[in-house]
Amino acid sequence: MEQKVFINSGKELDELYASAFVVTDENLDRIYGGMLPENKFVMRAGEENKNLDTVQKIAEAMLKCGVRRGDRITAFGGGVVGDVAGFAASVYMRGISWSFVPTSLIAMADSGIGGKTGVNVGLIKNAVGSFCLPDTFIETKYLHTLPTREYRSGMGEIVKTSLLDADLFEFMHGKFKAVEAIKKCVKIKSDIVNKDFTDKNGARKALNIGHTVGHPIEMITGLSHGMSVLLGLRFELLMLRDYLEHNYFYELQSYLSKYIGDTRVTFEPEAVAVIASADKKNEDGISIMYPYSIGDIREVVLSKDEFIRLLKEAM
Amino acid sequence: MEQKVFINSGKELDELYASAFVVTDENLDRIYGGMLPENKFVMRAGEENKNLDTVQKIAEAMLKCGVRRGDRITAFGGGVVGDVAGFAASVYMRGISWSFVPTSLIAMADSGIGGKTGVNVGLIKNAVGSFCLPDTFIETKYLHTLPTREYRSGMGEIVKTSLLDADLFEFMHGKFKAVEAIKKCVKIKSDIVNKDFTDKNGARKALNIGHTVGHPIEMITGLSHGMSVLLGLRFELLMLRDYLEHNYFYELQSYLSKYIGDTRVTFEPEAVAVIASADKKNEDGISIMYPYSIGDIREVVLSKDEFIRLLKEAM
Repeated sequence: MEQKVFINSGKELDELYASAFVVTDENLDRIYGGMLPENKFVMRAGEENKNLDTVQKIAEAMLKCGVRRGDRITAFGGGVVGDVAGFAASVYMRGISWSFVPTSLIAMADSGIGGKTGVNVGLIKNAVGSFCLPDTFIETKYLHTLPTREYRSGMGEIVKTSLLDADLFEFMHGKFKAVEAIKKCVKIKSDIVNKDFTDKNGARKALNIGHTVGHPIEMITGLSHGMSVLLGLRFELLMLRDYLEHNYFYELQSYLSKYIGDTRVTFEPEAVAVIASADKKNEDGISIMYPYSIGDIREVVLSKDEFIRLLKEAM
Repeated sequence: MEQKVFINSGKELDELYASAFVVTDENLDRIYGGMLPENKFVMRAGEENKNLDTVQKIAEAMLKCGVRRGDRITAFGGGVVGDVAGFAASVYMRGISWSFVPTSLIAMADSGIGGKTGVNVGLIKNAVGSFCLPDTFIETKYLHTLPTREYRSGMGEIVKTSLLDADLFEFMHGKFKAVEAIKKCVKIKSDIVNKDFTDKNGARKALNIGHTVGHPIEMITGLSHGMSVLLGLRFELLMLRDYLEHNYFYELQSYLSKYIGDTRVTFEPEAVAVIASADKKNEDGISIMYPYSIGDIREVVLSKDEFIRLLKEAM
């Protein structure tokens, strides 16, 4: 059940036209609408539209276009489009195949790999979803039209991923080349996903570094996902800094600062704790995946009170 | 991946209380609410509430009750409750376990077996759904409070199932005992489902006899599912009667009449054809599963025009 991933193969247009139906968003449709097939659903852009209401509308449009069980649909867009269209595919007629042409850096390097789909329920991200692998067609030319905020968000997930892998970590300290970074991220994430497709045995948890504090920051501040993960990482490193060797701690903080720049956030630690507790990954206490060293990620479970105390100290 | 089914084991109350969350409907809650745990969602009764909106409300209630990935939920009700609660379970936090305590005859004999879940999108039944096996706890004592219309609906699916199996067919011509009939139906359906869990290789299609015309009748007339299937069977037998040996045709019609009684329907054949064409099972033309003899079910595919012509002749 290895995921098929094509990088700069130039096959994505064939794939789009071979699909019975395409899902994209209004921003992309404005730029690329002319090259998309007619059977498509254009969703409103933004995380706030990643919900069951949009799934309903997509299913209605698919029914209207006569999409059948044996058909395939393609998501053309960033992580939100992929999450919602992938979920729609996984449940439409009890599940049809799907492809993903990611247009954002974060979707190319991270969310386009691994087959997690999902929509939000109220404030809870991906409270409803599925595991359903797409074929993914990464074309870096689409990065040219990516807004800066989104590009920086993608860099955030790449930087996060680099803490899982010494090779990528070293690469990130040299001259940056997006396509190489994406290739490495795809490989790192695929290897982890293959060990733990349905997120049960713990291997996939390593991908959550920075997310325990980062997710709530994203929800509270509205900052991009990748930037929120970087800020989450910074706070998590501070919260548990006693676990880290002195130089390594400062090296990481300086590395993160290069990508965080002067972005600052304010939030109530209690609010972060409430959102973190509600996360599906946090069954007993609040779990933080912690980079003891590059590639050595271990879980630390804190009680809610402990979490709040440490977060306050880190602020 | 064999489904666990318990029949009159008396374990269903333990199961309900061992679950983190229960889904039922308002009619059942009025009768049995006192014996149900507090963490529950009471949905409005009826097929028209089998939709994504109810799934959203169930997910919200589950989040509020703190239901986690490792938890299990239980559906307490008929087919609608099972379909919608099972679907909610299969996607909540990307999928949690569920149990089903069916309270209707049709759910005990048919929909509680096989793990198909689903909700309707507009007029299209189960346009969105999943395959997710519950543990099923059948307690025939709940039949005592089942409305007559629903009981007759269940009999409809049992009669349908009897055309798949000579033993049940013979049993149905003797003194009827619900628990025995249910046991036989569970066995027949489980055997078929085990050959074709995700409805891909065709084995499960045999279960659809009567449904090609029956589903549309149900949607157009509002008759119960089982009664609609019986009427669908009657029309389908008439439409393709040339395939059948004379005596066998009359034997089946007389057998069906025993359960249909004086129920009559009127509908536009074109409307039935439109709904049948939209069904996810009908990729190319309209497929009818046809009982050439008891246990010998074969597929007949008709063009839409042919389907309408034959249905008109049968009316």
